[in-house]
Amino acid sequence: MKRQLDADMTHYVDPQGLLPLREAIAADMGALRGLDITPDRVVVFPGGKPPIGFSQEVYCDAGDEVIYPSPGFPIYESFTNYLGLKPVPLHLDEEKGFAFTGEDLAPLVSPRTKLIILNFPSNPTGGVATRPQLESIARVIREKAQPHVRVYSDEIYEKILFDGSRHYSIAALPGMAERTIIASGASKSYSWTGGRIGWAVLPTVEEAAMFKTLNINYFSCISGYNQLGTKLAIESPHSPPAVERMIRAFQERRDVVVDELNSIDGIRCQLPKGAFYVFPNIAGLCERLGALELYDGLPPDVQARTSPATLVQMFLLFRYGVATMDRRAFGLIGAEGKHYLRISVATALDDLKEGMQRIRTASKDVDGFASFVLEGRRLS
Amino acid sequence: MKRQLDADMTHYVDPQGLLPLREAIAADMGALRGLDITPDRVVVFPGGKPPIGFSQEVYCDAGDEVIYPSPGFPIYESFTNYLGLKPVPLHLDEEKGFAFTGEDLAPLVSPRTKLIILNFPSNPTGGVATRPQLESIARVIREKAQPHVRVYSDEIYEKILFDGSRHYSIAALPGMAERTIIASGASKSYSWTGGRIGWAVLPTVEEAAMFKTLNINYFSCISGYNQLGTKLAIESPHSPPAVERMIRAFQERRDVVVDELNSIDGIRCQLPKGAFYVFPNIAGLCERLGALELYDGLPPDVQARTSPATLVQMFLLFRYGVATMDRRAFGLIGAEGKHYLRISVATALDDLKEGMQRIRTASKDVDGFASFVLEGRRLS
Repeated sequence: MKRQLDADMTHYVDPQGLLPLREAIAADMGALRGLDITPDRVVVFPGGKPPIGFSQEVYCDAGDEVIYPSPGFPIYESFTNYLGLKPVPLHLDEEKGFAFTGEDLAPLVSPRTKLIILNFPSNPTGGVATRPQLESIARVIREKAQPHVRVYSDEIYEKILFDGSRHYSIAALPGMAERTIIASGASKSYSWTGGRIGWAVLPTVEEAAMFKTLNINYFSCISGYNQLGTKLAIESPHSPPAVERMIRAFQERRDVVVDELNSIDGIRCQLPKGAFYVFPNIAGLCERLGALELYDGLPPDVQARTSPATLVQMFLLFRYGVATMDRRAFGLIGAEGKHYLRISVATALDDLKEGMQRIRTASKDVDGFASFVLEGRRLS
Repeated sequence: MKRQLDADMTHYVDPQGLLPLREAIAADMGALRGLDITPDRVVVFPGGKPPIGFSQEVYCDAGDEVIYPSPGFPIYESFTNYLGLKPVPLHLDEEKGFAFTGEDLAPLVSPRTKLIILNFPSNPTGGVATRPQLESIARVIREKAQPHVRVYSDEIYEKILFDGSRHYSIAALPGMAERTIIASGASKSYSWTGGRIGWAVLPTVEEAAMFKTLNINYFSCISGYNQLGTKLAIESPHSPPAVERMIRAFQERRDVVVDELNSIDGIRCQLPKGAFYVFPNIAGLCERLGALELYDGLPPDVQARTSPATLVQMFLLFRYGVATMDRRAFGLIGAEGKHYLRISVATALDDLKEGMQRIRTASKDVDGFASFVLEGRRLS
């Protein structure tokens, strides 16, 4: 990027994304998935989020249905509400490792379905779909969804997989490339959230042109030096070993954090297979701290903005200085009665160990929790 | 920016914009306008465009009316159509120096008006409103528009003024600060279109929070190093003399280009008072080249996508290698029968001179023009 700044790459550029970057993306995305991707179907965005909202804007009219995983990345659901679409959450079960099959999807597909959002590896659960699971999902989509229905496959964590897992894209399955938008970006694979570079591979050149038009109207284009920095990240021979080291670090932290969490009374945590989050079930902890009774005692307007797990989240944050995210943040619909937290392991191991220690202490602080909730501030 | 990259400013940052940048913006915008602006009312965006679309999303429902200057920045009109709002163009007259007064605005204000877009100095005309003109506009808004109607004052060219003109903001007039969104950015003032940093000052903290929410959902946040580069541009003592040099260069080029254009038979061009565009009337040139008759002879579907001035634009581009923009690009509604081109002077003087020379040659190439149009390709 410094070289690009020196070379005066500081002006307007192609609103679809610089061709050299789109070529690098097409080659890398294609190679990993066994697909033939041309740069004219690639569109670059200021981060991974714009194509999520834009897809709902492009493919859906008011009243159309969007199927999305819940718990899932918050924007999937928030955009449906914003655009007057009908949110159709596909609830992920802990028992199924937070993945799902075509059998779970089938009852949700209707004639009003316009978009089906997938996200493997998943935020917040770290769930990864196996190839047979993806095949069953693809089969249901081919059989039940109309041909114009699009699959939005958010594969932003494609490179962050543990225990030798492999990334599969639904786009690589028969009949799916022409229905699937594959989305990814530089934030996670290259640990560069501040570069704000995301991209999508559209099924057709015509659809890519639609997204380019939205780019032009919403924000003109994206800093060229950020784009060429991303091209270097994708193509540099230094990247694969660096990414490999990063994944090993995530896996080590995951192991420590999951072990620690499972040794705390009232917390149960699966070993995620990808991404960099753990998603512990804290139902037992909520019970132990009396969170359900305290929640029931809150005024209705406060209840509407919080949950027992949210009370634990805020208690951990404001009394113990530990940042987590509650289940509610990842899709409101159907979040009631689900007691989970998301913990990111994208921070230093020592900090994570200290955080786990504090959660352990907090988990026994029944009086402190009650006084925090009864104090009535910062409950949501 | 290089220092910020070295300092690891490469992660997520505040979606409203980094506080140090918002403080710099508040101080600079406030000082220039004699307003007291607090950083909590400032929101930073990836360029100057997002707050245009977002304002229409935030303040308008389907069917509401948006008043905007025409010719004007293309996004003002395109977003109204995209969101199902009613576009209400305020047509700018060459005779009035492409500015307008409250008298021109008054008949357009209705109970359905939700947003009134102003843009001085103006793209594409270079028009600048005098203080009395702004006062008469403000008077009409105070008297005829409901208190919740917002003025979107796009002041992105605020620093680029010629012949000793001064920048006035409508927000500084009595009763207008609480109705006005003041928008600006780094692209024009600091000749840095590739940094993609724009901002808006909202009338209230609550409205700023709305725009922050849209930022979170559409694109998370903006590269921190771009933001801190902008802060430096705003605060550095090296900036004012550098901006002054840039303005002098624009003014010199403007003078050369306007003189050249006015010496070409069939072209008439005003001296713009700000921004870096000239907006010649080419009605005579269209006549001289037979563009109106050739346009009339085109098939209806081609006619619908072009205009006599567009034919000249495309002829200049593909036969003479000179890039201009047609009147149609700056608002379709009411563009019929208006024969103008926009020429940017934001390029080297020698290139501009060469361009003027080519336009002069092209202006006499009646046969070439006819053959270009009859060839039937690239007419829009």
